[in-house]
Amino acid sequence: MPRFFMVGSNIAGGTLLITGADAEHAKVLRLKIGDRIIVCDGDKTDHHCTITKISHGEVEAEVVESVPCPAEPSVRCTILAGLPKQGERSDYIVQKCTESGASEIVFFLSQRCVAKPDAKGLEKKVQRWQRIAEEAAKQSGRGIIPAVSAVGSFAEALDIANKTELPLFMYETGDRVELKDAIAEAGSIRTAAILTGPEGGFEPFEAELARKIGFRICAMGPRILRCETAPLTALTALMFATGNL
Amino acid sequence: MPRFFMVGSNIAGGTLLITGADAEHAKVLRLKIGDRIIVCDGDKTDHHCTITKISHGEVEAEVVESVPCPAEPSVRCTILAGLPKQGERSDYIVQKCTESGASEIVFFLSQRCVAKPDAKGLEKKVQRWQRIAEEAAKQSGRGIIPAVSAVGSFAEALDIANKTELPLFMYETGDRVELKDAIAEAGSIRTAAILTGPEGGFEPFEAELARKIGFRICAMGPRILRCETAPLTALTALMFATGNL
Repeated sequence: MPRFFMVGSNIAGGTLLITGADAEHAKVLRLKIGDRIIVCDGDKTDHHCTITKISHGEVEAEVVESVPCPAEPSVRCTILAGLPKQGERSDYIVQKCTESGASEIVFFLSQRCVAKPDAKGLEKKVQRWQRIAEEAAKQSGRGIIPAVSAVGSFAEALDIANKTELPLFMYETGDRVELKDAIAEAGSIRTAAILTGPEGGFEPFEAELARKIGFRICAMGPRILRCETAPLTALTALMFATGNL
Repeated sequence: MPRFFMVGSNIAGGTLLITGADAEHAKVLRLKIGDRIIVCDGDKTDHHCTITKISHGEVEAEVVESVPCPAEPSVRCTILAGLPKQGERSDYIVQKCTESGASEIVFFLSQRCVAKPDAKGLEKKVQRWQRIAEEAAKQSGRGIIPAVSAVGSFAEALDIANKTELPLFMYETGDRVELKDAIAEAGSIRTAAILTGPEGGFEPFEAELARKIGFRICAMGPRILRCETAPLTALTALMFATGNL
């Protein structure tokens, strides 16, 4: 069923007004009076609606039923990824992690990041990523649009992750726990974070820092994963292990 | 460590000769006498070598130690994917599933496939996919290069999958078992197959056919996955659940 997000929202008295780009999209989809659509409030509630009126640039719909969006996982997981060199890799991380249930996606700059965009460059990228996240959220039936952001420093990323119940640091060498065990030992959790590096991985001191402030330093099996694959693999494993897949 | 595949192979008496494109690649990597490399036989054995001679177009190396490649999973999983409309999606399936431990990748044409390449078109695609698989196998440290192929019919794909111990059919609607339960109920297995559809999914009769010949019809959670994401998600879940991640 066609899905729209109306964050903030024009929902009042059981009637809802779709305008702007969404109304354009409704036109492209050739929606007619009587058609059913889902309008999600971006806060985990789906309004199942019937279209009642279509006018120039606006679509009016009546709410038939409002239900919790079934697609939202029980664990709120934040993905923190070292900014990849290639733009298509960051796009990929945003799209696939949205599809797979991430609640928030944060890019950061660490020691081995090759791309070092300035503030303006980053701002443009964030806008692009946010559009990709919205598209993926619609397509996969999410109840929120994951917020995408970029923080300048590795330290800031550590801080964000460390505020969750299960901060996981994906590392390819040294003293590590299996991801499976880290998740199992955490028991029933409501928040988690997955931190992965850029193409060249992390410096040893970065892993040590994370370990000292309470991250679980995790291995993800014997195969070397690309920087754009690692967050998705870890997220999928987390969703699977917590009954969200 | 730089990794090469020598299938069939020039290994004799502990000395090994790298020629052709691999020798070119060694040049690009600026390998020198004394450098360590891994040469995999493509059959799960890694030869750790030291380079002993570099001449015009050839690199000679001495085998120091031959060990089983640690990256090969205990479950041999065949990915069978309905051919996506967009070429980049099939490329993606090959690359990511190779990284994630697939043993074989087979594309098939089912009812809702939009792309219907002829035999010659398919042959060219298979060559391209095979190169992508080789690249991904090197990068991720695999002990084999997954064979990539294309079969014309859905029936043929069913037949291939059904020869494994755990044929899984990913379906987005109707009477299904959770992927998690299907894997758990299978117990200790050595082979499995994951069958996923093209962009438009499967026709109900296709799912029924699969069910009747013994497939487990599986759900993968409440989020709708793109056709290029679904095989990777299912494979990652299988690897995770069987201790291969």
